[in-house]
Amino acid sequence: MNRLQQQLAFILEIDKLKKVLRQTYLTDQSRKENDAEHSWHIAVMAMVLSEYAAKKQIDMLHVLKMLLLHDLVEIDAGDTFCYDTAGNSKKLEKETEAAKRIFNLLPADQALEFGNLWKEFEARQSPEARFAAALDRFQPLLHNYHTQGGTWREHPIERPQVIQRNSPIKDGAPDLWEHAAGLIDAAVEKGFLKA
Amino acid sequence: MNRLQQQLAFILEIDKLKKVLRQTYLTDQSRKENDAEHSWHIAVMAMVLSEYAAKKQIDMLHVLKMLLLHDLVEIDAGDTFCYDTAGNSKKLEKETEAAKRIFNLLPADQALEFGNLWKEFEARQSPEARFAAALDRFQPLLHNYHTQGGTWREHPIERPQVIQRNSPIKDGAPDLWEHAAGLIDAAVEKGFLKA
Repeated sequence: MNRLQQQLAFILEIDKLKKVLRQTYLTDQSRKENDAEHSWHIAVMAMVLSEYAAKKQIDMLHVLKMLLLHDLVEIDAGDTFCYDTAGNSKKLEKETEAAKRIFNLLPADQALEFGNLWKEFEARQSPEARFAAALDRFQPLLHNYHTQGGTWREHPIERPQVIQRNSPIKDGAPDLWEHAAGLIDAAVEKGFLKA
Repeated sequence: MNRLQQQLAFILEIDKLKKVLRQTYLTDQSRKENDAEHSWHIAVMAMVLSEYAAKKQIDMLHVLKMLLLHDLVEIDAGDTFCYDTAGNSKKLEKETEAAKRIFNLLPADQALEFGNLWKEFEARQSPEARFAAALDRFQPLLHNYHTQGGTWREHPIERPQVIQRNSPIKDGAPDLWEHAAGLIDAAVEKGFLKA
């Protein structure tokens, strides 16, 4: 295969992300959303909310690239519900295998670049990765709040779990964390979330 | 409403893009794709295929921003089938109204920025807009080819229409146009598309 053929094989493969369902409901509650829609939504959120990133002058191109790619591993590994402790213990291993297969469809230089973007996102060390992770947490929280508890009610989840799950928002975007914490309190008050 | 509340109102509103169905089928032919999925897919395509942009050293952040926003107007205006001549005559008017309503949910500075990105994409004058438009055309073409004709067979569409519709690929990414033209020829040969 020549270079363009490898790139197109990757582009066709990632169409499968549109079939990976998440736990989060659309805000109209008509159905659960999929990973492709979620990735798009948080990428636009990054554009809108960049001024709240903990680090000023953040590299937005880098943030968008990480957000667009961050869930591709779920094509093979599936979506692991974030409050499923057993499922999450095997998650890293499954996702690492998936990254290897999927990114290696690309030419070697791009496989390396995309793989590194994914690893950087997962490591949450760079300011860009921290901001990206904050948005990845904040979006489902918004959806849960605006669907009268959504996934929180379905399982059911309690306040301390939601606080712990969403604490990376504090690192990546402190002002958004302040808002998120207010939504969590309001959710408890309204009976969307158990105390 | 304060600034963050305006931004969140926009973020919640655009969730509706996940419900706007396009004509294009997923490559597994299970269903049609929606605008949010399509926007994500072409944004990743931009990352993978940036080396084929007609202009070298293209501003990729600008390209990604345009691609992520380009279909938001369809929340109000709906998806107009690209080969529907009657529908397309009213398209600009409806989409301009939609842009006004949707982008004005944001604070004024961002409403202006996002509105300008959308106008730039539509005008197809800047190298970034031309490359973005090329990807917006190339993705459905790929899907149609890989679904034995997909939308082309459903309506049915003929080769000259497909050539005309996809000619912006030539302006934005000449090497991709070469590949696209080959796919169109192969599609005719295989009976996926009428000559």
